[in-house]
Amino acid sequence: MKKFINSADDFLKESLQGFGAAHKDIVTCYYNPNFIIRSKYAKKGKVALITGGGSGHEPMHGGFVGYGMLDAACPGFVFSSPSPDQMIAAIEKVDCGSGVLFIVKNYSGDIMNFQMAAEMMTGPSETVLTNDDVAVENSSFTTGRRGVAATIIVEKIVGSLAESGGSLVECKNLGNKVNKNSGSMGVAFSSCIVPAAGKPTFELRSDEMEFGVGIHGEPGRRRDKIKSAKEITNELLNAILEDLKPENKDDILLFVNGMGGTPISELYLIYDNARKMLDNKKIKIARSLVGNYCTSLEMQGASITITKLDQELVNHWDTPVHTAGMRWGM
Amino acid sequence: MKKFINSADDFLKESLQGFGAAHKDIVTCYYNPNFIIRSKYAKKGKVALITGGGSGHEPMHGGFVGYGMLDAACPGFVFSSPSPDQMIAAIEKVDCGSGVLFIVKNYSGDIMNFQMAAEMMTGPSETVLTNDDVAVENSSFTTGRRGVAATIIVEKIVGSLAESGGSLVECKNLGNKVNKNSGSMGVAFSSCIVPAAGKPTFELRSDEMEFGVGIHGEPGRRRDKIKSAKEITNELLNAILEDLKPENKDDILLFVNGMGGTPISELYLIYDNARKMLDNKKIKIARSLVGNYCTSLEMQGASITITKLDQELVNHWDTPVHTAGMRWGM
Repeated sequence: MKKFINSADDFLKESLQGFGAAHKDIVTCYYNPNFIIRSKYAKKGKVALITGGGSGHEPMHGGFVGYGMLDAACPGFVFSSPSPDQMIAAIEKVDCGSGVLFIVKNYSGDIMNFQMAAEMMTGPSETVLTNDDVAVENSSFTTGRRGVAATIIVEKIVGSLAESGGSLVECKNLGNKVNKNSGSMGVAFSSCIVPAAGKPTFELRSDEMEFGVGIHGEPGRRRDKIKSAKEITNELLNAILEDLKPENKDDILLFVNGMGGTPISELYLIYDNARKMLDNKKIKIARSLVGNYCTSLEMQGASITITKLDQELVNHWDTPVHTAGMRWGM
Repeated sequence: MKKFINSADDFLKESLQGFGAAHKDIVTCYYNPNFIIRSKYAKKGKVALITGGGSGHEPMHGGFVGYGMLDAACPGFVFSSPSPDQMIAAIEKVDCGSGVLFIVKNYSGDIMNFQMAAEMMTGPSETVLTNDDVAVENSSFTTGRRGVAATIIVEKIVGSLAESGGSLVECKNLGNKVNKNSGSMGVAFSSCIVPAAGKPTFELRSDEMEFGVGIHGEPGRRRDKIKSAKEITNELLNAILEDLKPENKDDILLFVNGMGGTPISELYLIYDNARKMLDNKKIKIARSLVGNYCTSLEMQGASITITKLDQELVNHWDTPVHTAGMRWGM
């Protein structure tokens, strides 16, 4: 197993300790008994945005804790849901006093544990469930569609509203709107290796790709021979646009996301191919994001996310943000 | 070859086009007859900072063109030097009127071509040569030590001085100081694949790593069995510290850099291991940088860079910067 690692058991703790130390101006990390990443910007009176999920998708979610995005993140072990206890501890740590909005990707384990935490806690809470992956209905760990990279778009836009004093219900409604306006789909050229497993999650031949792959290596629509970047981009885009059905006047955010093992130069090449296809369809790219944001450890692959924008969403996208993984305006 | 690519010939152009479109608020890209990335922030009266080198190390250097860093970058083909014509065209495009500082990594091809450009141009120019890689003296494409990730630290700090009105000689002297204060060393778990070659640059067995690897896959100090993250970090740090000889009172910048195919969670784990070792040696980490900044396409691997800091360097490190690859304060 070719990894920078000392032991599979300590992998997450050591990585989090490094993260916490490198970004101590933004976050405080807790390790005992629960792993929690808390924003130093969390403040009384705002709606607290809390999320979590299995680790292995970094910078998601810990990298988006900070000003203008999340108040806390609960990292589970690699590809494993965080526990309800962990979530309750996170709620106590942020304690903003205006309710808690959980942002949860649509995986059965995550949903169950966040639901238990919501029942165990005393204050008010709401949940935004993301399910932007248009590849397949139902999957290995999911009933319905999987929640993937659009979760980050939800976190940025709702984070902005919460920072500016939006109420719990307003934040929930905006989160649902962003999720409804978003579609994603990805492709993998290689599997990742979960440290505790020590071997690839799945095997692909040297000329094969998994089309519509999940961020834990779940099967997608099909296995296929490697295609050109244009053919891959075209198929990903068409699947997303078929689902979102943007109209001519719609502005969109185009987000090309790397899975962890793909050079950023290839992500920009995908962006270029997508941009030309969208131009032909008279769909206007109003905002862009390119990079490794929602990853699957060292998986070689990429995904495209499109979010239909209106002025409200653009305004919240543009507000200042200061996290380890996304920063502008401050 | 598992890449997002349409043809090896068009790889760089399509990638640059995507980069230029995604970051049109920061840069203007030119394609004909020369590839040039020019900052929209370049302004009359300042010293122009121009760099270049083979592509494949993204975000270096194009990702550091913008406010507070570079005025222009000349991307050569993957792992190939840019041409003197390309550099002359870049000089004409920025034309700031207070001289040009070339920041050049120590590779024979880059040096020769930048030297030719300096002779061909009419205005004054100076050059800062980076050679921070402590792994080996002389290498496949280098006489002396290789220039690697510390080049980015030079670009940020000298970029700040140039932005605030520093003269050509002041910028040159500061660049030389940062380079002298910096040391780097890296390790590879896998080779990258240059698109035009279509196959790995070198081969490593499933349990092997290249210790002291260059950013084009050049051999390092030795091939060895994969070690624990602690052992690798310890050896990299000791090699750098032996070279830099920081004193107890020195503050440092600790920069853990990914080669392109390593998950960021592993980079934070290396950071954590390095942090503890530096604590033990009473060396204070005053600033940190963790991420994929100076890459080798999809190579699995990482490098550590240490820069000894003083108040002047810290002040310039902290000033606002707005580039695709590094952004804060604006």
